[in-house]
Amino acid sequence: MPQSKTVNRRVVLARHPRGAPTLQDFRFEEVPLPTPREGEVLLRTVYLSLDPYMRNMMDEVGPGYAPPVKPGERMVGGTVSRVVESKHPSFRAGELVLSNAGWQDYAVSDGKDLVALGEMARPSWALGGLGMPAFTAYVGLLDLGQPKAGETVVVAAATGAVGAVVGQLAKLRGARVVGIAGGQDKCRYAVEELGFDVCLDRRDSNLAERLAAACPNGIDVYFENVGGEVFDAVLPLLNNHARVPVCGVISNYNADSLPPGPNQLPRLLTTVLQKRIRLEGFIILDHYATRFEDFRRDMGAWLGAGKVKLREDVVDGMENAPAAFIGLLEGRNFGKLVVRVGDAS
Amino acid sequence: MPQSKTVNRRVVLARHPRGAPTLQDFRFEEVPLPTPREGEVLLRTVYLSLDPYMRNMMDEVGPGYAPPVKPGERMVGGTVSRVVESKHPSFRAGELVLSNAGWQDYAVSDGKDLVALGEMARPSWALGGLGMPAFTAYVGLLDLGQPKAGETVVVAAATGAVGAVVGQLAKLRGARVVGIAGGQDKCRYAVEELGFDVCLDRRDSNLAERLAAACPNGIDVYFENVGGEVFDAVLPLLNNHARVPVCGVISNYNADSLPPGPNQLPRLLTTVLQKRIRLEGFIILDHYATRFEDFRRDMGAWLGAGKVKLREDVVDGMENAPAAFIGLLEGRNFGKLVVRVGDAS
Repeated sequence: MPQSKTVNRRVVLARHPRGAPTLQDFRFEEVPLPTPREGEVLLRTVYLSLDPYMRNMMDEVGPGYAPPVKPGERMVGGTVSRVVESKHPSFRAGELVLSNAGWQDYAVSDGKDLVALGEMARPSWALGGLGMPAFTAYVGLLDLGQPKAGETVVVAAATGAVGAVVGQLAKLRGARVVGIAGGQDKCRYAVEELGFDVCLDRRDSNLAERLAAACPNGIDVYFENVGGEVFDAVLPLLNNHARVPVCGVISNYNADSLPPGPNQLPRLLTTVLQKRIRLEGFIILDHYATRFEDFRRDMGAWLGAGKVKLREDVVDGMENAPAAFIGLLEGRNFGKLVVRVGDAS
Repeated sequence: MPQSKTVNRRVVLARHPRGAPTLQDFRFEEVPLPTPREGEVLLRTVYLSLDPYMRNMMDEVGPGYAPPVKPGERMVGGTVSRVVESKHPSFRAGELVLSNAGWQDYAVSDGKDLVALGEMARPSWALGGLGMPAFTAYVGLLDLGQPKAGETVVVAAATGAVGAVVGQLAKLRGARVVGIAGGQDKCRYAVEELGFDVCLDRRDSNLAERLAAACPNGIDVYFENVGGEVFDAVLPLLNNHARVPVCGVISNYNADSLPPGPNQLPRLLTTVLQKRIRLEGFIILDHYATRFEDFRRDMGAWLGAGKVKLREDVVDGMENAPAAFIGLLEGRNFGKLVVRVGDAS
């Protein structure tokens, strides 16, 4: 469905999901285009990023670092947008910007949250390989995980927007990389295209045994982005002085209660102690001021030299955003998931 | 019972404890004095240190960083010993040394693990306020916890060998210190003598509510040395960017199975992520080469200036070591627990 020039389609949260979101948790609305005031710009969404953190924003109690979306409010999200009309001195009509316009065709911004993108060959990369997900991989793996040559790095969701970059950066650091992904196609891609040493299909049985076999020297860095069964399999394999940057726990996002016992918390604390493990949570928003410039420079160079490869899973039309997002939480995407909301030109 | 000059009494592990150790898990033996060879010294134990980590050494599967004690083997432990006879060029008969002679009257050493103590006014301090427990507090709190002025620091076992120093160092850094201890006497001592701002009696009900009331600005550093109920009460109060050095989990040491569900692990990971918490285990053995000299200098100065106070709980006679150790795991000691095994002179 092409974008209207007079109607702003948007997706609002219909209700807080119970467990996994369903299509009924979202509602489409059509409203008039907003009008920019002096000092503002009118933006038209070209690409909308879909990311797992959005699931947290849909709960009554939000993630703490940002206010949750209330029922009736528009879903939030990063976008690549084109400036339609500018009453702001720093932006001109026609240019591409990185924005937080959310799940809608049009938005107004005072410019504070906008980053001019210039004319990128692949504007959607600003939402993936040159944006938040890859920056998350960069900070989490390099600053917190600190892999050394010869060490073993494990990452799940290995072909996802974050995991794929984690694995490739770990390879650039000389580490041995073991990925975990859902399905043989993804595993083959992780090894053959991304250069992972091994990739295990999480759908096969006995993950713990297969992971142990794939990590004969134990695990030095586990980039935690899924939690659940993978974490349980990783824990006994962690080496002394292992680092566990905690970037996300996607397996928990849909859970509305804790899993049954026994309570594994004492085992975790004992392991953390005896193996001198550092478990460290991070929220990427905290790191833009200090590290984003370094990231853009390094990542630009790596992409230019072909040292890091990116894969996108592009869904056409905002009408398909809710289903695509539900699929993301189930691991049905293959690469960075973006919605092409409108024409790029 | 005074030390014999011809018989070496020692305490061996009779069997692996099931849960909390009992007196039947220990056995006394009398053997001939060992004879030092060329390059060795004969040591007589003056003070034996009793520390919670020893419980880990009694299990079939040891703590990983050191081999466990097998049934029939002598219990291990730090001692202050006097050199009885020396065939080693660096030590002379009569001098006091810090040693790892374990639970026995006499030992032979090749000198590699010995530290000459000179003539200390309080030689037992080498096992506490100038030794391993206080060094544990120093590294864990200052290097890993990194408290800043005005932040809130929480420590349990607040009058124990480690906790008492943690709290006093946190006060020296300008932090607000909330202790948790077993009994009103200990709590009063922590506040009135050690300068803690608050100390909560863990034996009273509603620890979680009382801790929340005592930490109106949340918790920035939790020095983890007990686990269990205290950890559960601390977790929801941790602030963004809180640090949790994990020094010990004494509440787990006697457990032979995991507690019932639900499994709290997902809640921990979510909290670690959303609040960007750093949870970091450490084993003090790793830090002697880099930080012990700094510690001795700083701690010596603080003790000399009266800025840090020490309290010892001295038990007389090695025959009482097993019961004293069992009491330590139940929190019955009040201050650093040492056994006076022999005459100091």
